[in-house]
Amino acid sequence: MTTYVVGHQNPDTDSICAAIAYANLKQQLGAKAEAIRAGKINAETEFILDKFEVQAPKLVTELAKGDEVILVDHNEKSQAIAGIKEAEVKEIIDHHRIGDIETGNPIYFRNEPVGSTATVVTKLYQENGVEINEQMAGLLLSAILSDTVIFRSPTCTKADKEIANRLAKQLGVDIQKYGKNMFKAGSVVNQLEPKE
Amino acid sequence: MTTYVVGHQNPDTDSICAAIAYANLKQQLGAKAEAIRAGKINAETEFILDKFEVQAPKLVTELAKGDEVILVDHNEKSQAIAGIKEAEVKEIIDHHRIGDIETGNPIYFRNEPVGSTATVVTKLYQENGVEINEQMAGLLLSAILSDTVIFRSPTCTKADKEIANRLAKQLGVDIQKYGKNMFKAGSVVNQLEPKE
Ligand SMILES: [Mn+2]
Ligand SMILES: [Mn+2]
Ligand SMILES: [Mn+2]
Ligand SMILES: [Mn+2]
Repeated sequence: MTTYVVGHQNPDTDSICAAIAYANLKQQLGAKAEAIRAGKINAETEFILDKFEVQAPKLVTELAKGDEVILVDHNEKSQAIAGIKEAEVKEIIDHHRIGDIETGNPIYFRNEPVGSTATVVTKLYQENGVEINEQMAGLLLSAILSDTVIFRSPTCTKADKEIANRLAKQLGVDIQKYGKNMFKAGSVVNQLEPKE
Repeated sequence: MTTYVVGHQNPDTDSICAAIAYANLKQQLGAKAEAIRAGKINAETEFILDKFEVQAPKLVTELAKGDEVILVDHNEKSQAIAGIKEAEVKEIIDHHRIGDIETGNPIYFRNEPVGSTATVVTKLYQENGVEINEQMAGLLLSAILSDTVIFRSPTCTKADKEIANRLAKQLGVDIQKYGKNMFKAGSVVNQLEPKE
């Protein structure tokens, strides 16, 4: 059985990128895992997926009874994909307050008080000794910059900066320049402008 | 403010040893942390503390409003020390099903589906690059052997065995022999026998 990896409803960049990258890590560790999304991709995330040539996860509007799922970037039922109560939560990777998900069995739950789920996912690659390819490095870097507003958010920690800097170095990306372009691509103003 | 590290009510060996060892790790990382216990030390744990010459944590029967606390070996209010609802949960390190603790802020929550909390605590020493002294190694090994019934419990994983074997090697301890003595010391029969 394939385990879905999914972020919250109305997914932001961290929810999409952390889901893709964590599914990739699980696959490399030998698991059958697939990133899905619970809603529409926003303009910022679309820009990132285009830039790093990664396909958007499949849209799944509701889980079926018994589906196995890994939650990323949230741990509250009210934020989760429809059908969550009938599904089996196998893992949670997050960076928010502890919410109301309960499980019948012990699971891997990794929540850290850092600026993005992508920061935690990057640590998990490292702890498992798995190399991060350029595509995944691009998504992880983008998600950290998105959630921390290029390190300006009060939730941003030393770990977020260190990890983002390392990913940027791997990619040869200028964080400030890339971050600005990313936010510009995602801004409402930009979305309201005609595309052609 | 000192952060208390505490296991569940009616503490078993894992709750006591994981609390002591995790408080020790936090101290070495520069935090003000102190292991406490929510109840009586059992005979098995007493044997272990004697053997490795470690003092029992202070007994605290109820937390005060605003106390900062790290929960080990449980993550359910019903199992927690009295006063938990008025205290501030700062971290959770556990290996059980996900329970009903909610927090207002993001915290470090590390739950793994392994045989003992001590296994997770040992990983945290390693991830933080902190050496495990002989006393802590003794407590951690004992807690793994206690919770996994010397690797015989269905909850025992490869990680528990690997980590216990490494700790035993550091200590020069024969796992089967030591484990048997430990369980013998904790058995009810032994407790009912006159001590002299
Ligand atoms: Mn999010
Ligand atoms: Mn996030
Ligand atoms: Mn216990
Ligand atoms: Mn335990």
